[in-house]
Amino acid sequence: MNPAVSEIPPSLIRAINARKRPGDIDLGLGEPTLRPDPAPFEAAVEWVRGHGCPYTANAGDAELRERIAGYAGAGRFSEAANVCVTVGSEEAIYLAVKSLLDPTRDEVLVVEPCYLAYPKLCTLEGIAHRSVALDAADGFRPDASAVLAALGPRTRLVVLNSPGNPTGRVWPAEELERLAAGLDARGGEPVYILSDEVYRELYYTAAPPASIARWHPYSLVAGSLSKSNALTGLRLGWLVGPGDVVGAAVKVHQFVNTAASTLSQRVALNIFREPVRLAEHRSHYEGAREALLAGAERERLEVLPPEGAFYALLRLPPTLAHDSVRAAERLLEEKRVVTVPGRAFGEAAEGWLRLSWVAPQGAVEDGLRRIAQFLKGK
Amino acid sequence: MNPAVSEIPPSLIRAINARKRPGDIDLGLGEPTLRPDPAPFEAAVEWVRGHGCPYTANAGDAELRERIAGYAGAGRFSEAANVCVTVGSEEAIYLAVKSLLDPTRDEVLVVEPCYLAYPKLCTLEGIAHRSVALDAADGFRPDASAVLAALGPRTRLVVLNSPGNPTGRVWPAEELERLAAGLDARGGEPVYILSDEVYRELYYTAAPPASIARWHPYSLVAGSLSKSNALTGLRLGWLVGPGDVVGAAVKVHQFVNTAASTLSQRVALNIFREPVRLAEHRSHYEGAREALLAGAERERLEVLPPEGAFYALLRLPPTLAHDSVRAAERLLEEKRVVTVPGRAFGEAAEGWLRLSWVAPQGAVEDGLRRIAQFLKGK
Repeated sequence: MNPAVSEIPPSLIRAINARKRPGDIDLGLGEPTLRPDPAPFEAAVEWVRGHGCPYTANAGDAELRERIAGYAGAGRFSEAANVCVTVGSEEAIYLAVKSLLDPTRDEVLVVEPCYLAYPKLCTLEGIAHRSVALDAADGFRPDASAVLAALGPRTRLVVLNSPGNPTGRVWPAEELERLAAGLDARGGEPVYILSDEVYRELYYTAAPPASIARWHPYSLVAGSLSKSNALTGLRLGWLVGPGDVVGAAVKVHQFVNTAASTLSQRVALNIFREPVRLAEHRSHYEGAREALLAGAERERLEVLPPEGAFYALLRLPPTLAHDSVRAAERLLEEKRVVTVPGRAFGEAAEGWLRLSWVAPQGAVEDGLRRIAQFLKGK
Repeated sequence: MNPAVSEIPPSLIRAINARKRPGDIDLGLGEPTLRPDPAPFEAAVEWVRGHGCPYTANAGDAELRERIAGYAGAGRFSEAANVCVTVGSEEAIYLAVKSLLDPTRDEVLVVEPCYLAYPKLCTLEGIAHRSVALDAADGFRPDASAVLAALGPRTRLVVLNSPGNPTGRVWPAEELERLAAGLDARGGEPVYILSDEVYRELYYTAAPPASIARWHPYSLVAGSLSKSNALTGLRLGWLVGPGDVVGAAVKVHQFVNTAASTLSQRVALNIFREPVRLAEHRSHYEGAREALLAGAERERLEVLPPEGAFYALLRLPPTLAHDSVRAAERLLEEKRVVTVPGRAFGEAAEGWLRLSWVAPQGAVEDGLRRIAQFLKGK
């Protein structure tokens, strides 16, 4: 067996989910519970009736690639050649790491707290990685200077996620601009940014989230329809970036899975042809967020108000903060509420629990009440 | 950039396809031109209307995994835990190579002529590989003793493909049994067989092709619906094998793309629930094969009669046999017929051209006529 596979630590999210029983309140979910509009699916099947279901080009359907460039390229990457259509944003992240980095010399810097697939993927590929933590005392505020200070001589890729899982923070435009300027001022070999923008349509700030690609030419943008349109099972994402890196990524993509599903690409094309569809679930999440914050206030729970995505971090009291895994286990055992321990997102989030608020509003309110009872008992 | 990506040699198939012009006769195709039945697609969309489009478990839908085990497990691998649902058989092959082999010590043995993604994937993963050639003078007859003689002390995986691309040969049961017995007699660390069975429904022998998994416990079976059901764009395949290897493969799968498309899995489930659908295109190919062989005889072309798949190897005359790439280029330039040079399948097939006979019968006949004219002129 490949030792790199066994080296990957087991998933804490998976461990807590394995303990879930029917009837539990699930605030641990990582996917929307809304139903997607079936119309793009019906149109895709109509297309199959007329065309069959042949492969697309490895990099994806040409029109879809162009439309994705227009949507996710931040004005910098505007051509089909800047886009590889992928099997979800997970594959986009994999392709970026695999095609860009030389395992014998390069290093990845991951901004935590974050989805731990980033460092685990580096482990799988034998690529050195370090993390830089945003400051918990400052509500995990996005901070370009912290990232710049953490760069090392071998750093060739920085992984950002905005809007962020699990913090719900959005990197402000001026902070991204400072980050890009700092990287530019550094000189030498370029440092790429992998910007995971999978939650970009789910924002609660005045303006939509900005992309680092607007300021930084060495940007790789990962995204998908999973969260915006409740289409996690569609496995349709993209990697957008400079043509040379995307070209190498397409080569890897070809050996890993040939191409993304033609059927999924047709569904995506039907959505991108009416771009208003990309934002069709946003108002729902705005309402759900208001309900979450009202419930948290009612129960006097300290949560970070999310600026984006559909998660909120809850601060554990000092008696529980040293072990978020144990806290999540006890909350599940004693009150039947599933949450994700902060440690599942790196050491930086130890002392917190991640609450997901995609569950129906009544369940979220009941969950918050039970959490408050649990915390009072400690 | 990752040097392993740039090391992968460019594709000869891609190079010849890039020269294709509208109106050319295409005997270079690697996918069916039949139309799939839309009924399984309609049922899948009906399911989405009722359930949305959520992720399945990483390894795939449980019922689908069980049905695939029953179909492709050769009586040895019969449980869901023996199956990972993949993004086409390409991903299955990738997962097998990536999860099984330790790049610091293991070696892969590839049986040529074959689809060159096998060795290229090894290059991408930094895994040593060698090839063993079946004998062109013997029509590339499957030969267990040749494979056994080529094993080295570091060989941990042998890659077979039956029915085979490009030869159309099917490994007979007794030859597979001899191979399994030889591997067993060897002792020491087990040598796995990766059996690419993507063409298994397209056979023209008296009995369906056997799987090495029937005799060899260390077998990994890759397959998909791409060729059997003209569903290349569905990107729905499987890796079937011992639970420990499949478990490691699922772990890799999770980091590479999370899971196969739920929509594609629903289409597949609708096919597996009526298994007769898996063989629904076989009689079409039987007829097309007869037409190909009649056309070749009429034009006095020396082709290997295919026992399976939808390819046939054509032997080039001595004046052209030293350079199949040049022969294919000239055939395209002078007669506007696309074929694939044998060298695209390894040195063992130099001196041959691969003809694909999925094109409409008239096109295949016209193509054979033009090839005969071309060869007469040389």
